[in-house]
Amino acid sequence: MTVSDERFMALALSLGRRELGACWPNPAVGCLIVSGGRIVGRGWTQAGGRPHAETVALAQAGAAARGATAYVTLEPCAHHGKTPPCAEALISAGVARVVAAVEDSDPRVAGKGFALLRAAGVAVTTGVLADEAARDLAGFFLKTEHGRPWLTLKMASSFDGRIATASGESKWITGGYARKLVHSMRARHDAVMVGAGTARADDPSLTVRDLGIERQPVRVVVSRYLDLPLMSQLARTARQVPVWLCHGTGVDPDRARAWKSTGAELVSCAVSGMQIDALDLMQQLGARGLTRVFCEGGSALAASLLAEDLVDELVGFTAGLSIGAEGLPAIGTLGLERLSEAPRFRLIETMDAGGDVLHRWARG
Amino acid sequence: MTVSDERFMALALSLGRRELGACWPNPAVGCLIVSGGRIVGRGWTQAGGRPHAETVALAQAGAAARGATAYVTLEPCAHHGKTPPCAEALISAGVARVVAAVEDSDPRVAGKGFALLRAAGVAVTTGVLADEAARDLAGFFLKTEHGRPWLTLKMASSFDGRIATASGESKWITGGYARKLVHSMRARHDAVMVGAGTARADDPSLTVRDLGIERQPVRVVVSRYLDLPLMSQLARTARQVPVWLCHGTGVDPDRARAWKSTGAELVSCAVSGMQIDALDLMQQLGARGLTRVFCEGGSALAASLLAEDLVDELVGFTAGLSIGAEGLPAIGTLGLERLSEAPRFRLIETMDAGGDVLHRWARG
Repeated sequence: MTVSDERFMALALSLGRRELGACWPNPAVGCLIVSGGRIVGRGWTQAGGRPHAETVALAQAGAAARGATAYVTLEPCAHHGKTPPCAEALISAGVARVVAAVEDSDPRVAGKGFALLRAAGVAVTTGVLADEAARDLAGFFLKTEHGRPWLTLKMASSFDGRIATASGESKWITGGYARKLVHSMRARHDAVMVGAGTARADDPSLTVRDLGIERQPVRVVVSRYLDLPLMSQLARTARQVPVWLCHGTGVDPDRARAWKSTGAELVSCAVSGMQIDALDLMQQLGARGLTRVFCEGGSALAASLLAEDLVDELVGFTAGLSIGAEGLPAIGTLGLERLSEAPRFRLIETMDAGGDVLHRWARG
Repeated sequence: MTVSDERFMALALSLGRRELGACWPNPAVGCLIVSGGRIVGRGWTQAGGRPHAETVALAQAGAAARGATAYVTLEPCAHHGKTPPCAEALISAGVARVVAAVEDSDPRVAGKGFALLRAAGVAVTTGVLADEAARDLAGFFLKTEHGRPWLTLKMASSFDGRIATASGESKWITGGYARKLVHSMRARHDAVMVGAGTARADDPSLTVRDLGIERQPVRVVVSRYLDLPLMSQLARTARQVPVWLCHGTGVDPDRARAWKSTGAELVSCAVSGMQIDALDLMQQLGARGLTRVFCEGGSALAASLLAEDLVDELVGFTAGLSIGAEGLPAIGTLGLERLSEAPRFRLIETMDAGGDVLHRWARG
């Protein structure tokens, strides 16, 4: 590993992030082809997950790939899926050396990509900027290894942790800049998820707006009984941007039929106690290919995800106003016996977001 | 006003902050005597409020004060109080020029200090770093003009705005570094104040610890009925560090007698509705000379101070743990009808405080 290996890999990582949120169920990979110190090909996994980063970069490099070094943020695939394996494509193009950040944990790849390359006489270096790559690809790895997507939980609240007044008024607690940041966060996730209470109270569209982004995240609503208004933004637009309704057992069939007729997809989840089982919910989303989910509340859904230790990143926006104890809490009941049982997160960063405080926290 | 005037004034301001929190009922003033570009005297109002900054600086300068420039952060006093007026002392010392940041709003001074100096042929420049000085002296001005001290409200809470679990457990939500910062904030206020619930639940000592500070802030407890445990840190130490108990009308006389016997001072306040009137409370504290009060909750006291618009600065410490909706809220009921009525503050700064988020807010 050399300094220039790290510099080229950093560039490959930034390429890989270009379609983060849009290339599920595939990982958001970046690839750089370098020949004689000159970049001859750049690629990243395209929206929808194909073509892969290596395919794009090799096509750009053409004959210049012969004898070149390929920087890839993830081990090149080794299995014949809908496209031939990238490891073979790199070999055919005559690439002399492959530098990879991390090994793929997909059992169909898991070291086989590197083995194919080495067997064909290609030099392989691994582990370059592995931590950075693992962070970018965390959702893909979670899905592969644990069957569930990465979960970011966002809470925009008053100074005293309230998301609405007692009468349900919530527009606006945080300012315009914070809301714009939320849209850019939505765009980097495969799906935006809210609970039924939030869907009923706010009639949200849950789309990414004003950022020049076309491909929208899936909209997921978690509703035990599917008791959501059909006269709503989500129902009206379910054919333009996917709406997935995660419901429990024993749902009224008329209601299910009506929602299906809007174009929404129904996802049946296990129920535990009175509500949808949070782990099963996340696994259902993983089984459908999602790698990164951005949950925006409300309190009950946030509490059940936290209680089940399913939150990977916590994003807080704190505004400088106080709503008081009658207001709606950001997080519902957790049933803690002791303070030591409280889910704890580690501060990543805090900043002034246009007059609101943005704070990001990682799983302890 | 010159660049060097601003630089010397900045130094005088930093001197003035040295005993902030310890020189009430007097303002925390700084003074610098400069002769031929050389600093010949430095002074600041001493703990207890006397001697004044000018007296200290002039004593240090001695004969070098003749023909020198004196930088003072507040207009020199003009009235004969317990000490002769500083304006006269500056004249007697032969100071040629006085540069001041702000005029005193105390009606006994209010321009008279400057007038005395000018009448004696001393050149006077005012308004140098006036905003900075006004911030440092805000508590003194509030007391002079509105009869109440500056109020900083501090809340250390979980990510979801809770200050304790349902069972009252609160040790510790924030980390050691945040708690150390709280001690340094206490030290820069004249008094530390809590409500009765907090005093009962935590049995706090409310002192400044581990900072090498001797002079302690007054400990103020707000208790409608004076129903506070006599077997407590506060009662035990009331003769070492002042304890003021702010109570309402109709208090049990035995209880009052018992508390007096510990050395605590009783402060009778007006009652409005079911609780102590927040404005009267602050005015009682102002009448006793306090210029800066640091309130550390709990929820009911915080809510009543916010509702009466008596909070000048809001300090939040947010920890990366979630307690859930059963937990004790940081701020009690505010009785808002609309979100637009919510008390709003303006973000001053946010930073990582040893893994907790520190955020400071000023009155809108």
